Amino acid sequence: VDVGAGDYLLATVDMLVEDVHFRRDRPGAFEVGRRAVAVNVSDIAAMGGEPRFALTSIALPPALPLRWAEGLYRGIRHEADLLGVGVIGGNTARTSGPLTLDVTLLGRVAKPDLVRRSGARVGDVLAVTGTLGGATAARLLQERPGGAASDLEESRRYSVPEPRVAAGRALASLHLAHAMLDISDGLASDVGHLAEASEVGAVIYEERLPISSPTRRIAQHLSDSPRDLALFGGEDYELLVALPEGAVEPARRALGQLPLTVVGHVLPQEQGVVLERGGGTREPLGAGGWRHF
Amino acid sequence: VDVGAGDYLLATVDMLVEDVHFRRDRPGAFEVGRRAVAVNVSDIAAMGGEPRFALTSIALPPALPLRWAEGLYRGIRHEADLLGVGVIGGNTARTSGPLTLDVTLLGRVAKPDLVRRSGARVGDVLAVTGTLGGATAARLLQERPGGAASDLEESRRYSVPEPRVAAGRALASLHLAHAMLDISDGLASDVGHLAEASEVGAVIYEERLPISSPTRRIAQHLSDSPRDLALFGGEDYELLVALPEGAVEPARRALGQLPLTVVGHVLPQEQGVVLERGGGTREPLGAGGWRHF
Repeated sequence: VDVGAGDYLLATVDMLVEDVHFRRDRPGAFEVGRRAVAVNVSDIAAMGGEPRFALTSIALPPALPLRWAEGLYRGIRHEADLLGVGVIGGNTARTSGPLTLDVTLLGRVAKPDLVRRSGARVGDVLAVTGTLGGATAARLLQERPGGAASDLEESRRYSVPEPRVAAGRALASLHLAHAMLDISDGLASDVGHLAEASEVGAVIYEERLPISSPTRRIAQHLSDSPRDLALFGGEDYELLVALPEGAVEPARRALGQLPLTVVGHVLPQEQGVVLERGGGTREPLGAGGWRHF
Repeated sequence: VDVGAGDYLLATVDMLVEDVHFRRDRPGAFEVGRRAVAVNVSDIAAMGGEPRFALTSIALPPALPLRWAEGLYRGIRHEADLLGVGVIGGNTARTSGPLTLDVTLLGRVAKPDLVRRSGARVGDVLAVTGTLGGATAARLLQERPGGAASDLEESRRYSVPEPRVAAGRALASLHLAHAMLDISDGLASDVGHLAEASEVGAVIYEERLPISSPTRRIAQHLSDSPRDLALFGGEDYELLVALPEGAVEPARRALGQLPLTVVGHVLPQEQGVVLERGGGTREPLGAGGWRHF
């Protein structure tokens, strides 16, 4: 929102409800607190913004162990410190129901740098940061342990997503991105959100999805398709970026170590959102339908 | 918080949980929505600020009638429009527990105009806007109907508090108030909050409490003490202001129709927070102890 100065004020809020968005026993209070901050910061990152302040509202059931509540607050504080966010306020209530946590995140972005999800243009490249499917693979592996010990180790990395703040700010301040959002629901779903907001269509190339080796191994162990994990899994909180072809190399240089992989193109709206298979055939890319979600 | 321009950004959040902070059946969805916005705006008003934007997070139980949820949103929208607040975002979740509503309110205040609760000085006058005890009298009357029909009518006024935005801004922009807060918990409790934040003591004069005639009649009908309603009742959302003696008349002129009543003075901290009775005797003014709370 425009507050009259040289910056836009960015504001986002996300409510997490026990047994809907997280479980109390796994991965634990500290991680739930960290995660609540991280996913909101990711929203700010996807607009090219700098996260600044958080407010936290927490409804606690009377039976909640004090230690759990303390762990939650420590996790919030830890992640906020890590991401340069000041926790400036909040509120605690009691509830007869599940633990409910609502985090508001405020940030800023210089007006010319704001990136929305609505700016994608026909012919743009669609690219993603990092790799996809890892968060879901990790969660499934923790529910059904087995396979290589190193993969379980690897999977712990995913209990708290790493918001792509530096990447988002770099792409925004260099004016390389036409549109951006963070992949919270899964690429298939979020590319649909971007296409809808931008009034365009999109094609995703199945063979170009960036999937890590551990994710492929975990998928094999779970008899799941790595492709499905990458397309439908969600919770990776990587950035999906629409940018002109010529901006891909400058963007890669700006992102340094973080990979940027071209996974598709923006199409005219009437061509819809489709998945292109290895053989070149295309099918509609629906967000739902995967059995885990 | 300082966001670098000529204004401070004000941010406040308040979580309302069904059966803790409101009941679903009375006064109704529309009023719950209005109230959630109004109490947050009141916080902004007490800092001398202008409310600007709201974000709403709502966790809905599956059994909630759709009509109730619609009424809630209509109430939020109605009150936001009334108070010049833009609802810029939010979030809906499902919950297995009680309906939970979290409203974040963002506002602004010119830096020199900010009023905190910590600025009261020894010798300042303590004054309140409007009248006290009415909100609690209204609530009690709705729970135990009877008495004059006109009083029940009067009591309806209180189901949604009227945040004192214009009054707060006037007192702040004219630099008349040293400290200010909104009376949400009851005068006894909130004068304690102001005294604690300002590191001072305070005396409240029992005989000067502004109590409306309907509130006195309702108290009589309920066999309650009007004084207790005014001191301990809460939810009036009037402003409690610490200001120099000489600022009282200019403040009254600035407030126009809204009464400003001197109810006490700021004392040195070692004298504590006390109530002065009609005869001149003083006793400690504790926040608790009243049977309804």
